[in-house]
Formats: sequence, C-alpha cells, structure tokens
Amino acid sequence: MFPFQSLLSFPLGSLQLLDYAGVAVFAATGALAASRKQLDIVGFLFLASVTGIGGGTFRDLILDVPVFWVLDHAYVLVCAAIGMLVFFAAHRLESRYKLLLWLDAIGMSAYSALGAAKGMAATGSPVVAIVMGTLTATFGGILRDLLAGEPSVLLKPEIYVTAAMAGAAVFTAADLGGLPDPASALLAFATAFAIRGGALKFGWCFPTYRSRPGRHPDDIP
Amino acid sequence: MFPFQSLLSFPLGSLQLLDYAGVAVFAATGALAASRKQLDIVGFLFLASVTGIGGGTFRDLILDVPVFWVLDHAYVLVCAAIGMLVFFAAHRLESRYKLLLWLDAIGMSAYSALGAAKGMAATGSPVVAIVMGTLTATFGGILRDLLAGEPSVLLKPEIYVTAAMAGAAVFTAADLGGLPDPASALLAFATAFAIRGGALKFGWCFPTYRSRPGRHPDDIP
Amino acid sequence: MFPFQSLLSFPLGSLQLLDYAGVAVFAATGALAASRKQLDIVGFLFLASVTGIGGGTFRDLILDVPVFWVLDHAYVLVCAAIGMLVFFAAHRLESRYKLLLWLDAIGMSAYSALGAAKGMAATGSPVVAIVMGTLTATFGGILRDLLAGEPSVLLKPEIYVTAAMAGAAVFTAADLGGLPDPASALLAFATAFAIRGGALKFGWCFPTYRSRPGRHPDDIP
Repeated sequence: MFPFQSLLSFPLGSLQLLDYAGVAVFAATGALAASRKQLDIVGFLFLASVTGIGGGTFRDLILDVPVFWVLDHAYVLVCAAIGMLVFFAAHRLESRYKLLLWLDAIGMSAYSALGAAKGMAATGSPVVAIVMGTLTATFGGILRDLLAGEPSVLLKPEIYVTAAMAGAAVFTAADLGGLPDPASALLAFATAFAIRGGALKFGWCFPTYRSRPGRHPDDIP
Repeated sequence: MFPFQSLLSFPLGSLQLLDYAGVAVFAATGALAASRKQLDIVGFLFLASVTGIGGGTFRDLILDVPVFWVLDHAYVLVCAAIGMLVFFAAHRLESRYKLLLWLDAIGMSAYSALGAAKGMAATGSPVVAIVMGTLTATFGGILRDLLAGEPSVLLKPEIYVTAAMAGAAVFTAADLGGLPDPASALLAFATAFAIRGGALKFGWCFPTYRSRPGRHPDDIP
Repeated sequence: MFPFQSLLSFPLGSLQLLDYAGVAVFAATGALAASRKQLDIVGFLFLASVTGIGGGTFRDLILDVPVFWVLDHAYVLVCAAIGMLVFFAAHRLESRYKLLLWLDAIGMSAYSALGAAKGMAATGSPVVAIVMGTLTATFGGILRDLLAGEPSVLLKPEIYVTAAMAGAAVFTAADLGGLPDPASALLAFATAFAIRGGALKFGWCFPTYRSRPGRHPDDIP
C-alpha cells in the first residue's frame, strides 16, 4: 500500500474528462443492453452502473489503489443519470444495438488509455500498463454481456481485444517516450478507436484460427 | 488502508446475527441451485459457499477492509453445514425453486442492510452506502445463477434490484437520522423484504421499458 | 496490510516452478478454448492470460497481498507465449478438448497446492488455506468457461471440486504436521491430480443428489 499512497491523489488532471466520458458511454451501453432485455428502470440503473464502473473497479482492486468511485461519487451519479436518460429515450433510437457497439468502442478506447495510465502510474511497469489497459478496457463489456445474458463481444469475429491492446501499447510507448499524459492518452484513444471503428465499419478481422482438418481420412488433403 | 484500520474491529455487534442469517440463507439458495443441477455433495458445498460469501467478499474488496470470512471462519463453516444439510434434505422439499426464491429474498434483504452499514462505516458516504448495499445484496444471486447456468434473477420481470436499493436507502437515511445501527438495519431489512416478498407473492413489477415501435411503417402510430 | 507485508517476499522459493507450471497449463487450456471458439490470435492471448492468471489474481485480492503478476511480469509473458504457441500448434492436435481437460487437471492440482500454501502463509488458518486452495484451483476454469461460453466444468458429473479440496486439505495437513513446503505441495499436487485424473480416466463420480420423487401421486412409491 505504501508506495501507492500518492495515488490517492492520482494526477488524472486533464485526463478526468476522458475518464468521465469512458464511464458514461459504458454506462450507456449497459442501459442499452437493459433496454434490449426489457428491464425496468432500476434494471437500467443497475446495468448502467455495473457496466460503467466495473472495469475501473477491477483495475483499482488489482493495482491496490482506492476504488475510484468510492473516492469520487460523481461517477456513480453519472451512471445513474445515464441509465435514466436511456430509459426514457431508448425507444426513439433507430438501432439500439448498433449504437451500443459504437458507444462501447468509445468507452473501450477511453478505458484502454486510462487503464494503461493508471497501471503505469501505480507500478511503472510497461507490461503491467499494457495488461491493465487491455483487461480493464474489455472488462466492462464482458461484465455487461454476462449479466445481460448476451453473446459476449469477445467471441465475435470483428477485432476487439486487439484495439484495446493497441491503445494501451501506444499510451505506454508514448509515456516512455516522454510525452505528457494527456497527449499520450489522446494518441492511445485515437489508435484504439480507429482500429475498433474500422472493425465495426468495415468488418475488419484477423485470420482466425484455422481449424485442423477433420478426422475422417477423406477430409485430409 | 489507514482510515479503515478501525474496521478490523468493525462493530457489527448486534448486527452479527443478521450477518450470519444472510450468509446462511444465501448458502442455502446456492445448495438448492446445486440440487436442481444434480451435483454431488462437494458441488453443494461449493455452490453454497460461493453464494453465501460471494457478495460480502466483493463488498470487502471494494471497501478495502479485510475479507470477513478470512477474519472469522465461522462463516465458511456455516456455509459448509448448510450445503450438507440441503444435500440430505432437499429431496423432501415440495418446491425447491420457490424456496430458493424466498430464501434469496431474505438473504438479499439482510445483505442490503449490512452492505449499506459496512459501506457507511467505511466511508461515511451515503452514495457509497447505497451502492454497496445494492451491489452486494444482488451479487450473491448473480454469482449463483452464473455458476449454476440458471437464468439470472436480474432478468426476471419481478422487482428485485429495487428492493435491494430501497433497503440500502432506508438504512442510510435512518443512519443519517441518528437511529442506532440495529434499528436502522431492521428497518432496512423489513423494507427490502416487504418489497421483494410482495413481488414474489403478487407478481409486482414496474412498468418495463416500452419497446419502440417496430420499423415497419404500418406499426408506427 | 501490515501483518502481510512480509508476503511481498513470499517465500515460494522452490514452489516457484510449480507456480509457473500451474499458470502455464491453465493458460494453455484458455488458448485451447479459444481455438475451439475459432478466435483470432489476440483472442488466444487474451483467454490464455485471463485463464492463466485469473485464479491467482482472485487469491491475492482476497488475501490482500500484492497481485502476483503485478510483482513479477514473467507470468504474463508466459501466458502470452503459451497463447501464441497454441495458436500455431493447435491444429496439429488430435483431440483438443481432451488435452484441455488433462492440462486443466494439472493446473488445478498445482493451484490447489499453491492456493493453500499462500492462504496458510498469509493467515495461518487451516480453514482459510483449504478454502483458498479450493476456490483458486477452480476459479481459472470457471472463468475460462464463462468467457468462452462453454458449459462449466463444475456442472459435469465427474469429480472436480473434490480433487481441488482434497489437494488443499493434504497441503494444510502436511504443513501443520511440519513437512517442508515443497514436500507438502508435492503431496497435495499428487493427491489432487490422482483424484481428478482418475475421474477423467475412469469416469469417477460421486453419487449425485438423488432427485425427490415427482409430484404426481403415481410416481410416489
């Protein structure tokens, strides 16, 4: 705990905005998942909050720093407000799932930069920074899909985790290269979002694992 | 950690009974889920323990206080005893799922009060108290349903999360109003249980999200 | 935190090898699950890492000791290497699922010993040691199955949790009996693996819960 005490005043500073944005858009995806499941308003608040703060909670527990929303309640209130807003507005949306995916892309990109930033600040290790950026960027969406009983975004063919990892790697490299935090974070956000956005827009995907030939002798080339 | 050290001797005091009760009945719901899945006796012990102590573990990790069952092993032994009891007795039950739901209602109500109490004691913040009460009251059931592969209690139409949130809010208000902890906890428990019990008994549910009209022009009013 | 500071230099010592082995084989099962789901290479890295380090992360959070892979990045790099290896080699395998189950048995047995060892070192309590050994040995597989959307290994009839619990109990007993850690760990590993291996090889299972007679009067004996 000692070496991390300074994190109580973690100098997110100008990253704060990106942080709120990440939480808010993840919260919106949680609320949209609730709308797809036809939950009641408290179900909206619940899924919005869990999705919005889940990834960061996990990040802070692993880094052994105080959980961000316990220190600053505004995050929870933002999630609640978003949940309520979506409850009353979601019926106006043309395609809720498409919006969910794009908002998820924004939230994931923001968390990818912030997870790497907080991991770097807490440990100084590039490996930890990249892992934390990747895990916490993807965790909110995983949690949302598990709780809402939706097929996980992880198992879809379009590039997802790669974008999170690329964002975290860009932040880490820029940070090691001496760039100020906000610049590194913006670069990281842009990288992750460009990759995930391209995947959503153009269906980008990696060659997936090529299954081994079947067992029947005829199938073997 | 420093500001929370006093929690090592968290004065649950007279709340202790409610705490054991909450853990025990959640453990029983885990064991009943195991019986529905026809697991062996160790599966009963496992699901009973995970369901019984899951919510509180999560609560203590987030509040950065020592995990309750690491400090006091009696909780684990209670879960194990309950798991074994249900293994040998469950075949006598008329309707295991109905019992599961009612026990879950008791456990959820107890955890709602205790989560809020511990959140308030650890941080002094009403927002954190309400969120902790709500999250930890619902977490045990979510975990049980995920592990047992059952449809989540969250996605059912009957009021659930609302009851947890109402209990947590009542505790917090009563606590801020100066009531002693046991009285606040009893009020909170009664509130949560009355709401959830009503939902189970009379099928109470909120108006759920009204789906937007379909995309076909004919459907649009 | 104070009483656990010494764990920063937790004397795994000669257990280190078992620790790496457990992480590596769990990582391999994650990668094999990725191959069954036909994910891309980053999906392999991701599932390998989450499965490999998930159980230990959970263990360290509950024991309130620094998360092992944050202290020593080699674990993460091992997972990444294994993920990559499996991506390029899995198509050569005869039966990926069978291999997954056997590797899972090795990883589970290793984690069962190590979870108990770390639980014992951190708290000195046999109950905590047995619970930590059991939970963390099974957690990696649970996480993998949840994330990959596979039926949980917990819900299969063959003995699983019992093997983990037996390993943890053997470590704890041997430790209390004064055996040196490596000997206790080897005994525990061998016990857990023998039980789980027997279950895989010979289909060992406990009598499962005997369902109560149906509700129709004719069915009642």
